[in-house]
Amino acid sequence: MTNSLIRPYRPSDALALWQVIGPAIRAGDVYAVPRDMAEADALAWWAAGDHQAFVHEREGEVVGSYFIRPNQLGGGAHVANAGYATRLDARGQGVARAMCEHSQEQAAAQGFRLMQFNFVIASNVGAVTLWQRCGFSIVGTVPEAFSHPRLGYVDAHIMVKRL
Amino acid sequence: MTNSLIRPYRPSDALALWQVIGPAIRAGDVYAVPRDMAEADALAWWAAGDHQAFVHEREGEVVGSYFIRPNQLGGGAHVANAGYATRLDARGQGVARAMCEHSQEQAAAQGFRLMQFNFVIASNVGAVTLWQRCGFSIVGTVPEAFSHPRLGYVDAHIMVKRL
Repeated sequence: MTNSLIRPYRPSDALALWQVIGPAIRAGDVYAVPRDMAEADALAWWAAGDHQAFVHEREGEVVGSYFIRPNQLGGGAHVANAGYATRLDARGQGVARAMCEHSQEQAAAQGFRLMQFNFVIASNVGAVTLWQRCGFSIVGTVPEAFSHPRLGYVDAHIMVKRL
Repeated sequence: MTNSLIRPYRPSDALALWQVIGPAIRAGDVYAVPRDMAEADALAWWAAGDHQAFVHEREGEVVGSYFIRPNQLGGGAHVANAGYATRLDARGQGVARAMCEHSQEQAAAQGFRLMQFNFVIASNVGAVTLWQRCGFSIVGTVPEAFSHPRLGYVDAHIMVKRL
């Protein structure tokens, strides 16, 4: 039986987190951040400021991570936003789905009423399908919002779920 | 004939800018920022960091302001975002429309291909209608995304225009 848990990110996870998010940032095909972002900047983007980061550990090893944060301030602060990443060699094994469910529980427990993804790149079909299976709906699509390194301009979806 | 121009914001415009954005922030019904935000924080939000701010001057007096910025980084950096504010006593006189047109010219000249508004509060019917007249389309609506001080939870639209 696999020994898995999802727990808050700690600074000592930095190297393991980079191994999770680094390849995806360098590939430039799923996150709207610079492909050549320095490692320190990437870690700060993911896990500092108003982001609360968590890691998914399996057999004591970090195989995925997510963050949640308020999507807006003031009158929009009851809507959570989140980002997810799974280490390349751990994909297709339910890691992202488990993190998505955990993030919704965390957000609900903190009083958020909705969760919104602002920028789900349409060519990332695996993610779109998974979020739909997790109960998220596409509420809008921005045409050609993302310049994909191989596909050119592709659409980005806004996806929402009530918590 | 009215003597109007739109020009880059300067630090010496700070007091005039606060007179434009302050009442709207304190009313808490159009921007997703804290209603009780300190003046210095509000000015920094509007006109610092990656925001390029402009002011609309009429007869030498600042009656409106807007900012543009990249809506995302990396592969999303070709989409501009913008925010607009018109001083209470100058509303209904074409100030916002002139700023919207100016902002599109600025964004296009800087190489942005689209402009996206992430959070147009549905109860702000004047804004929704004006942006539609300026060529923006509602590409999505997030249900109950904004807690309005009088109306309770109201929807927020995502609006987009190709430049």
